[in-house]
Amino acid sequence: MDTINIGLIGFGTIGAGVVKALKEKGYYLKKKAGVELNLKKICDKDIVTPRAVKVEDSLLTTNVDEILTDPQINIVVELIGGIHPAKEFILNALANGKDVVTANKALLAEAWEEIFRAACEKGREVYFEASVGGSIPIIKCLREGLISNELEGLFGIVNGTSNYILTQMEERALDFRDALKEAQEKGYAEKEPSLDIKGIDSAHKLAILASLGFGKAIKLEDIYVEGIQDISLRDIAYAKEFGLRIKLLAIAKREHDELEVRVHPTLIQIGHPLASVNGAFNAIFVKGDLVGEQLFYGLGAGAQPTSSAIISDIVDLALRSGAPKRAWACNLEYGARIKRIRAIEEIETRYYMRISAIDRPGVFASIAGIIGKHGISIASVIQKERMKEQIVPVVLLTHEANERSIRAALNEVDSLPVIKRKSVAIRMEKEL
Amino acid sequence: MDTINIGLIGFGTIGAGVVKALKEKGYYLKKKAGVELNLKKICDKDIVTPRAVKVEDSLLTTNVDEILTDPQINIVVELIGGIHPAKEFILNALANGKDVVTANKALLAEAWEEIFRAACEKGREVYFEASVGGSIPIIKCLREGLISNELEGLFGIVNGTSNYILTQMEERALDFRDALKEAQEKGYAEKEPSLDIKGIDSAHKLAILASLGFGKAIKLEDIYVEGIQDISLRDIAYAKEFGLRIKLLAIAKREHDELEVRVHPTLIQIGHPLASVNGAFNAIFVKGDLVGEQLFYGLGAGAQPTSSAIISDIVDLALRSGAPKRAWACNLEYGARIKRIRAIEEIETRYYMRISAIDRPGVFASIAGIIGKHGISIASVIQKERMKEQIVPVVLLTHEANERSIRAALNEVDSLPVIKRKSVAIRMEKEL
Repeated sequence: MDTINIGLIGFGTIGAGVVKALKEKGYYLKKKAGVELNLKKICDKDIVTPRAVKVEDSLLTTNVDEILTDPQINIVVELIGGIHPAKEFILNALANGKDVVTANKALLAEAWEEIFRAACEKGREVYFEASVGGSIPIIKCLREGLISNELEGLFGIVNGTSNYILTQMEERALDFRDALKEAQEKGYAEKEPSLDIKGIDSAHKLAILASLGFGKAIKLEDIYVEGIQDISLRDIAYAKEFGLRIKLLAIAKREHDELEVRVHPTLIQIGHPLASVNGAFNAIFVKGDLVGEQLFYGLGAGAQPTSSAIISDIVDLALRSGAPKRAWACNLEYGARIKRIRAIEEIETRYYMRISAIDRPGVFASIAGIIGKHGISIASVIQKERMKEQIVPVVLLTHEANERSIRAALNEVDSLPVIKRKSVAIRMEKEL
Repeated sequence: MDTINIGLIGFGTIGAGVVKALKEKGYYLKKKAGVELNLKKICDKDIVTPRAVKVEDSLLTTNVDEILTDPQINIVVELIGGIHPAKEFILNALANGKDVVTANKALLAEAWEEIFRAACEKGREVYFEASVGGSIPIIKCLREGLISNELEGLFGIVNGTSNYILTQMEERALDFRDALKEAQEKGYAEKEPSLDIKGIDSAHKLAILASLGFGKAIKLEDIYVEGIQDISLRDIAYAKEFGLRIKLLAIAKREHDELEVRVHPTLIQIGHPLASVNGAFNAIFVKGDLVGEQLFYGLGAGAQPTSSAIISDIVDLALRSGAPKRAWACNLEYGARIKRIRAIEEIETRYYMRISAIDRPGVFASIAGIIGKHGISIASVIQKERMKEQIVPVVLLTHEANERSIRAALNEVDSLPVIKRKSVAIRMEKEL
């Protein structure tokens, strides 16, 4: 039986999870895959602090070259995160003829082309199942399961922290601050949570999903990003009255040869499968030309779920070893179809608006007049609270409209003397 | 670039879908996969009737040996269905050193061990993504994505016909007969629908999912099967009052070294992701020791969705060609953990019961007495319709109870003089 030697860089929570799973599942994996997976070396700056799993001292090193330059090591697993020195380690491993497994979404989002060009030149692979959706085999499904499909759209709940917060807001009427505080206490959110709640982590993952799914390297700066920090309990409650729920979605949508890539809070029909993705779960909803609609759902984080994804990559690479190198990594631009990324002002979608206006005769008529003048048609309205000369919310859903018109209309509405607060607008996807 | 030659046996609706997709996606697949997929021969009894796709006459044959004995053909795709001669064709292809792709769930359910033993002996692979869940890459996910997981449970909505009927009953209050008739008119159900509505098709698929997922060849006769033919609108409505929905589920559940394998209508919490799988969609909910809960959702049938699954198998085999043969097919019994299949009488679950009793003082007390005597505890009761001396329904949910006790209790209840119709019992899964 072949032995595949593995070098692990980064012995944190996830790294320890991988080591534990490899140890505990060694026999099982050998029977299933028919290869022996041998963890040959673990590198970390800190090899003293006890981890969730015990390893022999001889396995540990602080010198990364013991992995990168060891000719016996076939696969390097990079789990240190961040851009530097992770990128250098990966490029170095590829240059030395090793395949790479990484969970590093920030790096892939930033250096997609550089990394895969290097892999291609050396005839090696970079696998990255754990970079998006934690335990969910979404990368494998896009790369292999749906290989014959040209994608039409991809809609993901890919940030567990934001989804946990939105779920607590909806289910327990906690406001954003309290829900965030609870998420931090429970370890679902970082002390400095902005990467998650401002949508940046989702944008990293969207860059990866869209690059792979649409065959065109998508850069972070191509992606429009809005987080959940301004979502209020009021908007969640009004959305519910319309039969809708608010989720932070990572969206990539193709129309002919143009692609939209954006991350923002989105209204979803409550009966849609994405709407029942709650708490720390992730899900990716995909539309392909052959398969139609598909959904992949599972835990988006955690040492055990993530180790499942990483080991799946390791086994895949181990089983491919010895096969003639063919494509995958090299053919990233198979999607030649995508000619242009749309700016956010160009998109057309439905909108929820909450306008805070002084309750006075004729006010709704002037708001509606402005909206109509910008070519936007109103689908339904909620205006329940009537309190003369007080600020009351006017809540409405539009039909499909152009983002540029929506912004212009809201600017004009907000400059009316009866409007005392900035209006809220949340996008709604017709597909969902 | 390598060329992989494909021979297709069975040029029906699905076969034509595969041919069409291979033709239309040839260039795209070549770029993505780096291999040339060449459809070398198509065999069918009927090569005269026009299909949804045009092919050159030279591709067509009625002589299967032109595929099975052609040394240039690498992959045989079997799409004729049924046991004979499909089994002989597959065994013959394997004996001649070819890999096989099949969508034949009935055959795999019946001859799993024989087929994979033959594949193993010849060092070939049999891939079968299209046999379960249509377009959903569930086989790939179980085999590869979740490879390191030991499964705890697997719950599938895998028969689109039954799910379509149940959805119409629930959403439009059609009764079973009318919903079935409509499904037949729309082409979702066969003229002779019993394979679908009686749960047999689901059992075929469960045999495949459980054999693969738990690493133990499950035989059809191991599976307890109940269909949806006795589900009434009444039960759907009462279930809704309890916040539950009825779905036909294929269930495989492991407890220690014992496995339960069963197909039956099952009550699911309305908020559970499986509960919003409607119409012709399929979904498989999996619990693994590392990943926790996962759900895979998509279209369960149709020429296009199924062709996506078949082409994914073809590409996988094409990309593996030339690699040293390792395991997969041979190691079907990696699950050595499963020592025993439980009989249905041994399972423990919650139950919904609808008992039709004459409304008379003391009747509910005697029913409750019998149920309690059998060690079953009642969780909640609905008894709204009161009509003295008329037959009224007593509807209740039990806590977890043993199937044997439930059957004994219902037998005893049904023999009371005030009971005029057989009671209805529907299982409910605590996990869902």
